[in-house]
Amino acid sequence: MIAELLFIGTELLLGQILNTNAQYLSQRLAAIGVDVYRQTVVGDNFGRVEACVSEALGRSDILITSGGLGPTADDLTREAVARALGLPLVTDSQTLHSIERFFAERSRPMTPNNAKQALLPAGGQMIPNPRGTAPGVYVEHHGKKIAMLPGPPHELVPMFEQAIVPRLTAGCQAQTIVSRVLHLCGIGESDLETRVRDLIDAQGETTIAPLASLGEVKLRLTTKADSQESALRRMAPIEEEIRRRLGRHVYGMDGETLAQATAALLIRSGFRLGLAESCTGGMLAAELTGQPGISAAFPGGVVAYADATKSALLGVPKGLLRRHGAVSAQVCGAMARGIQARLGADFGLAITGIAGPEGGTPAKPVGLVYIGLAASSPDELVIQQHRFLGDRSMVRARAVRQALVMLRESLLDRTGVTSKEPAS
Amino acid sequence: MIAELLFIGTELLLGQILNTNAQYLSQRLAAIGVDVYRQTVVGDNFGRVEACVSEALGRSDILITSGGLGPTADDLTREAVARALGLPLVTDSQTLHSIERFFAERSRPMTPNNAKQALLPAGGQMIPNPRGTAPGVYVEHHGKKIAMLPGPPHELVPMFEQAIVPRLTAGCQAQTIVSRVLHLCGIGESDLETRVRDLIDAQGETTIAPLASLGEVKLRLTTKADSQESALRRMAPIEEEIRRRLGRHVYGMDGETLAQATAALLIRSGFRLGLAESCTGGMLAAELTGQPGISAAFPGGVVAYADATKSALLGVPKGLLRRHGAVSAQVCGAMARGIQARLGADFGLAITGIAGPEGGTPAKPVGLVYIGLAASSPDELVIQQHRFLGDRSMVRARAVRQALVMLRESLLDRTGVTSKEPAS
Repeated sequence: MIAELLFIGTELLLGQILNTNAQYLSQRLAAIGVDVYRQTVVGDNFGRVEACVSEALGRSDILITSGGLGPTADDLTREAVARALGLPLVTDSQTLHSIERFFAERSRPMTPNNAKQALLPAGGQMIPNPRGTAPGVYVEHHGKKIAMLPGPPHELVPMFEQAIVPRLTAGCQAQTIVSRVLHLCGIGESDLETRVRDLIDAQGETTIAPLASLGEVKLRLTTKADSQESALRRMAPIEEEIRRRLGRHVYGMDGETLAQATAALLIRSGFRLGLAESCTGGMLAAELTGQPGISAAFPGGVVAYADATKSALLGVPKGLLRRHGAVSAQVCGAMARGIQARLGADFGLAITGIAGPEGGTPAKPVGLVYIGLAASSPDELVIQQHRFLGDRSMVRARAVRQALVMLRESLLDRTGVTSKEPAS
Repeated sequence: MIAELLFIGTELLLGQILNTNAQYLSQRLAAIGVDVYRQTVVGDNFGRVEACVSEALGRSDILITSGGLGPTADDLTREAVARALGLPLVTDSQTLHSIERFFAERSRPMTPNNAKQALLPAGGQMIPNPRGTAPGVYVEHHGKKIAMLPGPPHELVPMFEQAIVPRLTAGCQAQTIVSRVLHLCGIGESDLETRVRDLIDAQGETTIAPLASLGEVKLRLTTKADSQESALRRMAPIEEEIRRRLGRHVYGMDGETLAQATAALLIRSGFRLGLAESCTGGMLAAELTGQPGISAAFPGGVVAYADATKSALLGVPKGLLRRHGAVSAQVCGAMARGIQARLGADFGLAITGIAGPEGGTPAKPVGLVYIGLAASSPDELVIQQHRFLGDRSMVRARAVRQALVMLRESLLDRTGVTSKEPAS
């Protein structure tokens, strides 16, 4: 079954409100196995609403509208749908009666436009609105199902759940669409795609799509089945295969952040970590300390923004700073060793770089960042040099992410833990 | 001029992401006098994208798309627009060259799919993407203007502002809607409303609306005029009056954050600040160091998560920790003095508290936070005790905000600077 969503309201076209109904309805329809092919937003204009309704019904089995059910002249969803279906509008006497009662009980005058809310296309059913005055309408006509719901989300949601979901799933064996998102690190979008291209192209029961945003790369697996359990069972072999191919690049799933995954790994490892941050200025510490339970594994760190602070709080030799500059592999290593020693930690992780917009030179451009990880034995000090793209905030965010990747790799090497989660 | 917006991405149809670009683009187009008649969301399907593009161009002068510009096979916006326009796709050699350089500089292999991002419909122009790898495309064809932008909002927004707005407004005189948002601190929403109720009710040419979100309170002023300048001139007397009534509570405007405003004030003051953070774990340092130019005023800080770190890096006496506990006015004061002394800073600002979810007791519940500010003379040490509501992340965010308010107040007292900005 194919559905379209139509959102009616000039305030949406002016950007005055955020269309959260679109996300909500799309998620819920996916969950009951209905494919949404289009969402459309249109203003409070009779001709344009009617055109949108006709077009949508020409393409789809189900149309769900939101908005335009109030009592004012601007509210014309009922009228436009009736015209598009070629059905007359009739008054639902029970609804008219309850509107009259509503006003009588409050001793308020009922103006003629209020009676409009009792209208519906002939053959339709009123959908009660427990949280507002505008009832919804449900019509089936020539095999198409049309549901009209009010715009306010706190009214739309219970009406959709109680009255529309049962009508859409009646008589069909409901299928549920289940998505699983695998979160990846240390791999680019195109490299990822190359490795799983054949699985994406296979177009089997489980579809696979790569997603990328702000330095993060994800793979979404989607499948359809009678139940959540059987969908996950169907997905399992493909998820296994992807995890086998991508190995450690898969750090988590379904919304888990890299900081969460890495903090959990650190806590499980029993190791203690100290941080020394220059250009990221405390961002990495802030991300790690966002995770409950981190205190056992994270005694603390230093935000060593000025050179003098690198010396005073981390013991970085002044000569080293003078010779190599604060943004150098040498100083990065000394920062990592410095925080490790001062806190008696198992690991010292340091970041120093040029986040911009000022401070870059041809030899040391904006985006140059060193990340250093010191571990227990004297020879265990690894320094990475990176060139990150973007503005100040992006350089900082990418540096934090890369430091987490580096820490995670090292923890995985040491603990022998793999990042592999069970497939269900 | 009539515009339509087309959002391309199956993840939108599955409800996996909220379409904030729709609101942003609609607001901005309204502000430059372009009417948006439709917003459409469609999945990553060539035929359906092409149909949407053709239909939209049949109705409108301007089409703005977002999404589908990445390097993968799913990304087919360029191809679908070219087909709908009947234009061949050509390679932009400069873009291809910069993609090749990008991979070469990182010693990463460039897979063939990456070259796709250098394609555009013949006659079009590439739109640089400073925050990502997918460039946008702008085409004018038979009097229609088409802009293709990437989906991630942090990429789309600057590209729209810098490259698309000037192309859409070139040569037209439009009525412009101008909004100014005044950002407030240290005042609650209802207190604010009481103080400006009469101005809100006046309903003149300038409308005033209070806005509140996550501990932040704002006032939005909106007016319409031929030009930005005349709108601001019309707004000026009301803005003056509001600023007169609210005084220091107005810390900034039009998106300025409290961290930005406070960092700017700190830099102007010539004072140097050291930070000692426990429960906020580096968040305050991260916010301040997000501001360019802060290094002159911020030598650094310590994230003193464990008690031992408070002693080792800040010199907090062990006896004090034992007697009063880490979350106490006494330890907070010692942390503030400790970081001030170690860095030779003018101010030491310390935060210690219980962010939860664990660690609360009846005497020291989750949400209890001490914030201490030490200044130069020995008697200048102020400790505030707070009980913040909410979960771990909210307690931390509120503590950071309150520490900024406290620092700002102290800086205003000392420098005699008011936070009053010129009205235009």
